[in-house]
Amino acid sequence: MLKVVTVYEAIEIIKNKCSHCSIGTQSVGIFDSIGHIVCDDIIAREDIPPFDRSTVDGYAVHSADTFGAGESIPAELECVSHIKMGQPADFMINKGFCAGISTGGMLPEGADSVVMIENTDEEFGKCLVYYGVAPGENVNKKGSDIKSGSIAVKKGTKIMPAAVGVLAALGIYEIPVFKKPVVAIISTGDEIVNTAPSSGQIRDINTYLLDSCAKQAGCDTIVYGAVKDDRNLIETAVDDCLSRADAVLISGGSSAGKMDMTCDILDKKGEVYFHGIALKPGKPTIFAMADSKPVFGLPGHPLAAYFVFRLFVKEYLNTVMCMETESHFRTARIAANIPSNHGREELICVKIDSEGNAAPLYTKSGIISVLSEADGFIRIPRESEGLTSGTEVRVYRL
Amino acid sequence: MLKVVTVYEAIEIIKNKCSHCSIGTQSVGIFDSIGHIVCDDIIAREDIPPFDRSTVDGYAVHSADTFGAGESIPAELECVSHIKMGQPADFMINKGFCAGISTGGMLPEGADSVVMIENTDEEFGKCLVYYGVAPGENVNKKGSDIKSGSIAVKKGTKIMPAAVGVLAALGIYEIPVFKKPVVAIISTGDEIVNTAPSSGQIRDINTYLLDSCAKQAGCDTIVYGAVKDDRNLIETAVDDCLSRADAVLISGGSSAGKMDMTCDILDKKGEVYFHGIALKPGKPTIFAMADSKPVFGLPGHPLAAYFVFRLFVKEYLNTVMCMETESHFRTARIAANIPSNHGREELICVKIDSEGNAAPLYTKSGIISVLSEADGFIRIPRESEGLTSGTEVRVYRL
Repeated sequence: MLKVVTVYEAIEIIKNKCSHCSIGTQSVGIFDSIGHIVCDDIIAREDIPPFDRSTVDGYAVHSADTFGAGESIPAELECVSHIKMGQPADFMINKGFCAGISTGGMLPEGADSVVMIENTDEEFGKCLVYYGVAPGENVNKKGSDIKSGSIAVKKGTKIMPAAVGVLAALGIYEIPVFKKPVVAIISTGDEIVNTAPSSGQIRDINTYLLDSCAKQAGCDTIVYGAVKDDRNLIETAVDDCLSRADAVLISGGSSAGKMDMTCDILDKKGEVYFHGIALKPGKPTIFAMADSKPVFGLPGHPLAAYFVFRLFVKEYLNTVMCMETESHFRTARIAANIPSNHGREELICVKIDSEGNAAPLYTKSGIISVLSEADGFIRIPRESEGLTSGTEVRVYRL
Repeated sequence: MLKVVTVYEAIEIIKNKCSHCSIGTQSVGIFDSIGHIVCDDIIAREDIPPFDRSTVDGYAVHSADTFGAGESIPAELECVSHIKMGQPADFMINKGFCAGISTGGMLPEGADSVVMIENTDEEFGKCLVYYGVAPGENVNKKGSDIKSGSIAVKKGTKIMPAAVGVLAALGIYEIPVFKKPVVAIISTGDEIVNTAPSSGQIRDINTYLLDSCAKQAGCDTIVYGAVKDDRNLIETAVDDCLSRADAVLISGGSSAGKMDMTCDILDKKGEVYFHGIALKPGKPTIFAMADSKPVFGLPGHPLAAYFVFRLFVKEYLNTVMCMETESHFRTARIAANIPSNHGREELICVKIDSEGNAAPLYTKSGIISVLSEADGFIRIPRESEGLTSGTEVRVYRL
């Protein structure tokens, strides 16, 4: 029954099994789009900018007319017009001529560059240019920002201000996005209560912690609440959640006997693909598919449950929403020796100190407050026999 | 009228003037709390864990009884009970005795450590211990995670899973948070349209971009929309927004004449504290207070408007919600020479390459797509005469 896998194997299994899960798509208005995940490549149907656009206030010119111009020998051009903002520049600039233009204004045909107003004098329709500009100088060429036909926003992109800016530039105000996956959350444990705990009891942390993890990852949640370690109660909870959610998280039951019970329940409803990961913390983790939906058995310890969400539940979400696996966000040298981890990959919270080194935050398992202190975590490979102070490591975001 | 300030001066002015702005507080349920900013230090009223708690399955012992125990010379203890999860351990362990305990179970009085079950044998009420444990081994001591009376979550903390976990552990389900600041957004410009642009016109980007920036920063927004460069229309817009919002953002009007008009309007309604920042991009920025509310005049160029939000509007939000100014998230060596920046601080989008170096993404001003490509930005100080390739720089989050 015990199928222990490595972190790599666990992720491959989750990716593989969840690649057939579908959570559906929808269209959201641009003002409600932040945080949603784009479900199709969004193709630009326009050039941005839609015309050659001045980046300064000045005069649109033929650059060749200004070559060699300087303070003592200005080029003299005839100013034919001043281009109004928001108006077409529907005339032609011939050699020897120029037109006044504001920042953001449209270059008239013929002009290929703009001389900044500071480098000119205008008198009686004559413009003196004291500075030679290169072709294209002070101009955003049509399509230089975004080309019509190119992919403006990739499938799997989380919509943040950058994407909103691109979509607004293109006039795309309805965005095709994935529906928010609905994740149901069950906590189990005879010691878990939602009232003031009596002696020996402890408050339910995982329900709230996993709810916030899921929301942060862009999911909607169903909170089933805390369930005692009773086979019938847990079965009922799993059935109810499977009928209403896209995925089920059931935490607790980290000791061998309880884990077996959860595993047994899931094995009867569907198929258990692994039951234990060579990972610390996070060993007592189960992954099963039931009703074509993923069910994750997470450790009862909050920190371990957090990491299992971060590494494995997030991988399910990445898979169904075509997102890339998040990479490390920086490297750092570890600030202390880290001893061997006995053949399991080890995850350690770190704080980046003032010198930019990663100081490991050692904790006994079960501790929650360390998450608040940490700036990220590092992964010590399974094969490693420990790391010496000063070793460069990758730091991952919490 | 032109009051150009440095970035440092601008931030000091904003902090100073906005320290008197109040946006009010409210209480939110823990399930709705993610992303909110805590408005008071939250004090722990309980110890976490609330009792000495085992981190493994095994036997609670007096560690002294196991000193010197090994494979060949086990310590022999009498097992008095098996502690049930969620039940008080309301008996005493005397020397020479032990009690069975599960992960998360409560240590009985007298016991100071737990021997893992793998290191024991139990037969006929006798427990053979093959491993000597140190005092406190495999135990989370009462209050070791969070001490009653300590600050569990600091004022100004953005609520993320780590804080949710701590609050749930303490049974704090109603969280005192700041109300979401309401930010009103106005775009100006004769060339700005919300329909398919004709020749010379361009779509409104800043309304959407700044709306998403504000939402990402935890604000509610009022979208006033695009306004032509007309004094009366802009005045009406500012009045309307001041009456409904906590802060007003008015973008566009980057050319000298238009900026003067916005500045003039704001100077009549309140007081303009600066009018131009020695910053590239972002020079044409205005900060005023009117009706005791901050009004930001932002550049028309989307990238510049984005940076001004990121550096200055965010500083207002940090000030009113007691948040710390975000620091750089990593350092990197720049991958190319960066020429001088003419006495203005310069912000440059960078992409972290596969070697971990920061490659500058050069763009002409007005370009929006660069934001999607970038991993962060760097700040080139005003006094710098340029940076040579390989210089270590701080990289800030976008």
